[in-house]
Amino acid sequence: MTDPDHAPDLPPHADPAPEGTPLPVVRLRPKAEARAIRHGFPWVYADELVIDRRTRALAPGSFARLEDAERRPLALVTVNPASRIVARVMDRDPEAVIDRDWLAAKIARAEALRARLYPGPFYRLVHAEADGLPGVVIDRFGDAAVIQPNAAWAETHLAALAEALVAVTGVSVVVKNGAGRARSLEGLSEEVTLLRGALSGPVPVEMNGATYLADLTGGQKTGLFYDQRPNHAFAAGLARDARVLDVFSHVGGFALAALAGGAVSALAVDGSAPALELAAEGAARMGVADRFETRRGDAFATLEALAAEGACFDLVICDPPAFAPNRGALDAGLRAYERVARLAAPLVAPGGYLGLCSCSHAADLTAFRNASARGIGRGGRRAQLLHTGFAGPDHPMLPQLAETAYLKALFFRLDG
Amino acid sequence: MTDPDHAPDLPPHADPAPEGTPLPVVRLRPKAEARAIRHGFPWVYADELVIDRRTRALAPGSFARLEDAERRPLALVTVNPASRIVARVMDRDPEAVIDRDWLAAKIARAEALRARLYPGPFYRLVHAEADGLPGVVIDRFGDAAVIQPNAAWAETHLAALAEALVAVTGVSVVVKNGAGRARSLEGLSEEVTLLRGALSGPVPVEMNGATYLADLTGGQKTGLFYDQRPNHAFAAGLARDARVLDVFSHVGGFALAALAGGAVSALAVDGSAPALELAAEGAARMGVADRFETRRGDAFATLEALAAEGACFDLVICDPPAFAPNRGALDAGLRAYERVARLAAPLVAPGGYLGLCSCSHAADLTAFRNASARGIGRGGRRAQLLHTGFAGPDHPMLPQLAETAYLKALFFRLDG
Repeated sequence: MTDPDHAPDLPPHADPAPEGTPLPVVRLRPKAEARAIRHGFPWVYADELVIDRRTRALAPGSFARLEDAERRPLALVTVNPASRIVARVMDRDPEAVIDRDWLAAKIARAEALRARLYPGPFYRLVHAEADGLPGVVIDRFGDAAVIQPNAAWAETHLAALAEALVAVTGVSVVVKNGAGRARSLEGLSEEVTLLRGALSGPVPVEMNGATYLADLTGGQKTGLFYDQRPNHAFAAGLARDARVLDVFSHVGGFALAALAGGAVSALAVDGSAPALELAAEGAARMGVADRFETRRGDAFATLEALAAEGACFDLVICDPPAFAPNRGALDAGLRAYERVARLAAPLVAPGGYLGLCSCSHAADLTAFRNASARGIGRGGRRAQLLHTGFAGPDHPMLPQLAETAYLKALFFRLDG
Repeated sequence: MTDPDHAPDLPPHADPAPEGTPLPVVRLRPKAEARAIRHGFPWVYADELVIDRRTRALAPGSFARLEDAERRPLALVTVNPASRIVARVMDRDPEAVIDRDWLAAKIARAEALRARLYPGPFYRLVHAEADGLPGVVIDRFGDAAVIQPNAAWAETHLAALAEALVAVTGVSVVVKNGAGRARSLEGLSEEVTLLRGALSGPVPVEMNGATYLADLTGGQKTGLFYDQRPNHAFAAGLARDARVLDVFSHVGGFALAALAGGAVSALAVDGSAPALELAAEGAARMGVADRFETRRGDAFATLEALAAEGACFDLVICDPPAFAPNRGALDAGLRAYERVARLAAPLVAPGGYLGLCSCSHAADLTAFRNASARGIGRGGRRAQLLHTGFAGPDHPMLPQLAETAYLKALFFRLDG
């Protein structure tokens, strides 16, 4: 499973100025670097802004005009006085008005990219900052869409956001998912609400030839992890005639893609019974139920049990939750990634394949690759690195923030 | 174009011991780290080895048994006393015999991976160290194969290598290409020789729905750059109905893939008339000659000329040669990458796409991305980063050397 949240700060509530009121002004400190903002960096850190009483009094999520130290206007921002990221750029035009049309233009631009990339409307439609909507994640599931308003401004403008979403995409079902980790850390409620329309059970999603069932109101995050799509595809390309093990499988992510790619068998391991039931339902719809098995349990314990049973697979994939969600958890997280690799490598047949994923912001590519290689070595194996994958292009990044790309997938071939 | 060489040191000649002679022994210095070798690192640096008179006298490319400081055998290596990388691991078994069977086993293992990955025998078959054959690159073109013996041991064992290659793959044509940069730097001859069979003109290669013509005896490197295959595919996925510009196109790499992906037009720019002729021939065979144009000239001058003409494209790709082939060239190289981005960005239509590639070892992903983002900014544009791609999986890496991955491809969407 992966962690599509990437909005590190969330205010507990917001109370924007009514329309028509002139916007407050916030100002960079004299030595703060206005150039970064001018060059597209989307955030202002607390130590770069003059935090006077007036600014401190702004309701989290308020819109304001950002000026440089010489009072030249820079951008329209949303302000959260309590956060380390005190302001986020909404629009480079300081005179912009954030209304339904503005929101619709952003969504339409985001949709144009996805329409070019994918055969049908099943994708991450809006990926926060990089799509010009700070803190807002929207996933599209055909006729339905799920909004994660992981920022105060989005929470207070949710009605307009949903209206714009419906106007641009024509979806008839809109779900608000307030269950993100970022939200709960910041005290926002964890509610999942239907804003429009009605759902009759999980939504089937076709991806890489597999059928997934996405539970838009009860599942993890927005119901399905679109970010792994290209990595699923790579795994499927290795899976012909293979016995496949998919650990931390969620609703069958890698296992069902591998079956679509011609695997002779796939075993999905996850801690969640409801997720595995959805995976089994997906396999049934694909007509591959006879080649699909699930095993519920702790991933580490299951890897050890499989080794004890002498199990052997041609392709093993481990896609754990974020073991290193922040800097403080980095060392322990890297040890956990190494342990996954160490336990998984012995289960791979001679000359077989091992896919290891990380969705931790704090563990960069080099650190994760080193931990993985170390674990494979401690598991008694040597490896070639075949492929390094990231989140798919429906998860764009601002180049200025690309260093913190959260999702990494490494595919190894082990010794024979 | 890209730079598949990655054998940084090459001896000027080699004179291996005749078969049956006991192998010489080389030994790590007392403080040298044997653990790296035991963990799969493939190289011994000069300051880690006891370089006595006997070792200094070894002919470059000689095989030897490597021992640690306590005289425990570590591996069978090939030695080049004149190189910073003084020894390269051939086999972890110090008693291994490097003969035709040994070579055939390596090639067969390499072929098994590619057979799984690709629908037909058109790929990089052997990618040097990562495939267990230090310094040896072999590209497969259906019934033909091109060997780049970029290491002395391979030069002296070329006959056995070609025999093993034919035995495993059944190819009837074998070309030796001695034109690599690494070779010429080290004084090896630049000859291109037919070792087996005969060629009647360029070989057609199907890739991503496009047809490329690979000139195996007169072209750049081994005739075609297989490493860009997944990046060509990504570009093709963006190309539907697009006007495409492919700068440093070689034999039409991105341009023909884009036409196969539904581009309405493609303009290929390159400095080489023979390469552009092959590109045009590929377009003709694909039946898209009416949508394909070429322009021969300096890339920078052509980008400036296109801007002066008011040209506009929906997808622009720049795949220059290695501007930073080594550390010393890094600063100048990054400036050149920035300049490419700065000149290309204004040619991209509003909301269009820009692909920028680097095949420089010395410019790592972060440095190249920053140079590209800076260039786009100086070209007056903002960008989302959609996709980061590397060389395809027929170019595997040892995890220990992955930090120096040479090929990077960044796909941006520009502002509208």
